[in-house]
Amino acid sequence: MTTRPEFRARYWIESSTPLAKAAEVIAGEQSSGTFLKLASETDVLKERSRARVVAVEPQGEAATPSLHSAHEERRGAAGPYHQGEIEIAFPIANVGPHLGTLLATIAGNLFELGEVTGCRLLDLHLPEDYARQFAGPRFGVAGTREHAGVSGRPIIGTIIKPSIGLTPEETAALVDTLCEAGLDFIKDDELICDPPYAPFEARLAAVMPVIERHADRLGRKVMYAINISGTPDEMRRRQDQVAEAGGTCVMACVNWVGFSGVQDLRAHAELPIHGHRNGWGMLTRHPALGFAFTAYQKLWRLAGIDQLHVNGIRNKFWEPDDSVVASARACLRPEPGLAPIMPVFSSGQWAGQAPDTYAALRSTDLMYLAGGGIIGHPDGAAAGVASLREAWEAAALGESLEAYARTRPALRAALDFFGGRA
Amino acid sequence: MTTRPEFRARYWIESSTPLAKAAEVIAGEQSSGTFLKLASETDVLKERSRARVVAVEPQGEAATPSLHSAHEERRGAAGPYHQGEIEIAFPIANVGPHLGTLLATIAGNLFELGEVTGCRLLDLHLPEDYARQFAGPRFGVAGTREHAGVSGRPIIGTIIKPSIGLTPEETAALVDTLCEAGLDFIKDDELICDPPYAPFEARLAAVMPVIERHADRLGRKVMYAINISGTPDEMRRRQDQVAEAGGTCVMACVNWVGFSGVQDLRAHAELPIHGHRNGWGMLTRHPALGFAFTAYQKLWRLAGIDQLHVNGIRNKFWEPDDSVVASARACLRPEPGLAPIMPVFSSGQWAGQAPDTYAALRSTDLMYLAGGGIIGHPDGAAAGVASLREAWEAAALGESLEAYARTRPALRAALDFFGGRA
Repeated sequence: MTTRPEFRARYWIESSTPLAKAAEVIAGEQSSGTFLKLASETDVLKERSRARVVAVEPQGEAATPSLHSAHEERRGAAGPYHQGEIEIAFPIANVGPHLGTLLATIAGNLFELGEVTGCRLLDLHLPEDYARQFAGPRFGVAGTREHAGVSGRPIIGTIIKPSIGLTPEETAALVDTLCEAGLDFIKDDELICDPPYAPFEARLAAVMPVIERHADRLGRKVMYAINISGTPDEMRRRQDQVAEAGGTCVMACVNWVGFSGVQDLRAHAELPIHGHRNGWGMLTRHPALGFAFTAYQKLWRLAGIDQLHVNGIRNKFWEPDDSVVASARACLRPEPGLAPIMPVFSSGQWAGQAPDTYAALRSTDLMYLAGGGIIGHPDGAAAGVASLREAWEAAALGESLEAYARTRPALRAALDFFGGRA
Repeated sequence: MTTRPEFRARYWIESSTPLAKAAEVIAGEQSSGTFLKLASETDVLKERSRARVVAVEPQGEAATPSLHSAHEERRGAAGPYHQGEIEIAFPIANVGPHLGTLLATIAGNLFELGEVTGCRLLDLHLPEDYARQFAGPRFGVAGTREHAGVSGRPIIGTIIKPSIGLTPEETAALVDTLCEAGLDFIKDDELICDPPYAPFEARLAAVMPVIERHADRLGRKVMYAINISGTPDEMRRRQDQVAEAGGTCVMACVNWVGFSGVQDLRAHAELPIHGHRNGWGMLTRHPALGFAFTAYQKLWRLAGIDQLHVNGIRNKFWEPDDSVVASARACLRPEPGLAPIMPVFSSGQWAGQAPDTYAALRSTDLMYLAGGGIIGHPDGAAAGVASLREAWEAAALGESLEAYARTRPALRAALDFFGGRA
């Protein structure tokens, strides 16, 4: 019918209005439609600008609404509430290569529509030539590996703990212990950035010489994802300071820096960007609202991050394992015009989850962060790191951890200690 | 006990764990706590960095959880799920005057905690000297009024419709009609920013001469909130172009530009910032998750916006009227170190909601946007604008619309036309 270039967004929705009609309301609200018929909405304009509903897939009905709507109450709406997936095609010309406008279009007022008692953005499909107009990941999986000097196995890492409170000198001493233990990657907690007791510059100045010293011994530089989240000017300056000091990664809290800030960092940065998703729970935890991770990670890939947190199997958070696995797969999936990024596993991870994680992913292209699984190992941090490497070797070889541990005391001790506690 | 400077965050939470303990888990996760006891978490560090639970106010119990938690299922947790409000005091020294770190602290991983089956940030209390370290609104209510040249009554406005699809020339022609009709304020839809068929610069160039021409006649300049949302560089450049062209306002989609981007704009901008909250539904619509608007508007006030959308009474969206009223009141409430901002009413507004809105606010410090209520008025847009002004006069005088309409045909026609349809 139309040959205008389009991109598509897929949603799960719920409405007392039949799904096909609810989909039209959303398509109208998010493009040229108004609740009044306007003479200025000409046929030419509609052809150019009006979004099209391209799929309506009913999935069932609920007796009560997932989300409250005063609008529905006022008009005396009763159930059933129709549920299902819809897909909407938007003219690319409505948006252009602008991430903020893309978000306003696919994730704007539609969540508030009175007719809608559930709305979740599931996925997003951009034609390759459109996706290529966004920055995208500069480093992704391959560039992250190159900067970390690690190939053929997961990048094993940890988070500096306690999250906050350590002085620069205390932080550097801990980094020294962790480098000594053989780690590939160390990151700041998302809670620390530039506090008065451990200013960004002092932390960087204290930590980098430790990493440089170990690099001489290791033949690779432990990747330190230092948290540079801040205003665009702060992030540019900090990125330069990290690069100048020989660092190989910068970290940003993507939800709070926001799309414009991350885009600015991407345009300026010479180093891989570690994307921290704290606050994500708010955007996804109710199944009838917000973002599915598949859509979320694509948006941040468009912005240009290289690594993104996905939680971990048997984590301490709310998230079920199948959701974690789906998230990691999404990060690794090549998309038209958009390179894969490194999924970052963390939260309650130790050697024990390696086989299930590998079985689900069939890949070692990931970052595997453990806290207690390293620091808490009964034989010390070096044994903790060894147990993680050994567990991943076993997983990739298809051997059981029990069998593999027979000749490997670090893994054996991990299984006894953490396995008993799990 | 402690004299360290602190700020406080208040939450509604739900947990199968007793509330006091769940509050301690959150306080630990969001400050120096770890799930392993670490030797490096010394008493000195705890005293410096550990957040304190300062209030636990149980409100009841639920038999089933508001939000699913795989962690709870794994440990076989059963109800009841305790509900209530808690308040946590964080050391200011954990964060410093950094909005991104503040967000990671008060709205980060806590939403994902396995023990938590509901978590909503209700409010935020910053000591005055801490709040003053953030930019805050430069113009707020007073500066917005000054730039609009409107005092003693609401700023009456509209949104350019159709939302998207109009060429720059069509947009300018519509703005001409709207200025002719006597409006105070016109804004872009959030969906339009810099599309190929109506590039930002062409739109600005087409519209501003129309506004300047009417300014000669009106003795004031109609405020045009042109959507400048983009990367920091784009927003700076566009702000300058708007100021250069004689514009008096710029608009940003705050959730998608993000905190860093808005901070950058605030630091650079010479004009009031119109904050559009599209995407807000995702952050607030489930009552057990996300942000309450009271907290949300404070965060954006800290970032420095001057105007923020609050929906409207009897709107076409999901939001109940009491929530709209509470939001507007929150924007107008002076906070220590933080000026009030203009609440922006819109969605399904016409003359009819003025009395209820005034009764709830006891203030005319607001922006009142109508679409159909102006363009759809049976006697034309000028009568639409007149009907809105008259309705607000009646409301402020405490007269009924019916009585006030006796000698005012524009209001009379609005009541007949829109009142009959409502």
